[in-house]
Amino acid sequence: MSSQLESAMESLIKVFYLYSGKEGDKYKLSKGELVNLLKHELADFLAGSNDPLVVDNMMQDLDENQDGDVDFQEFVVLVATLTVACNEFFIQSEKK
Amino acid sequence: MSSQLESAMESLIKVFYLYSGKEGDKYKLSKGELVNLLKHELADFLAGSNDPLVVDNMMQDLDENQDGDVDFQEFVVLVATLTVACNEFFIQSEKK
Repeated sequence: MSSQLESAMESLIKVFYLYSGKEGDKYKLSKGELVNLLKHELADFLAGSNDPLVVDNMMQDLDENQDGDVDFQEFVVLVATLTVACNEFFIQSEKK
Repeated sequence: MSSQLESAMESLIKVFYLYSGKEGDKYKLSKGELVNLLKHELADFLAGSNDPLVVDNMMQDLDENQDGDVDFQEFVVLVATLTVACNEFFIQSEKK
């Protein structure tokens, strides 16, 4: 049986392929697939931003190899960055 | 309700604090806490390595700010690295 950490890691992989497999290269997220993933998996995060270019800017930041897609490694950097930000928020609210 | 991705991110934070809160600075993993986390959460990973210094080496790699502990950001780098490795393994086995 998977531990809590292993299950979380498995979920990251499953979520990625849930959206990356829809069109084009199934090992990468196209911009459309990234938008779809953000809408369904990080709705609060997307809603919290009133910048219409948030996805375009995010795509540019994530797409380190500039191939127009987001591969799994680039996706994990997004998740890690957001998780660290959540943790910082958690620590600040605890210290108040 | 949290999405699958949000739940996975929440789990990463929960697992970290499950082990970091035991001794010393509750926002950081001491070496002992890291060993405990690895034993319970990544047992297969630890078992797969017959290097007695695997944890020492890991601690050195993770502890970027060299304070003798692993903070959440350093922990997330470990998780991201292992998850990317798992994904690579998954892709290679799919392509066979």
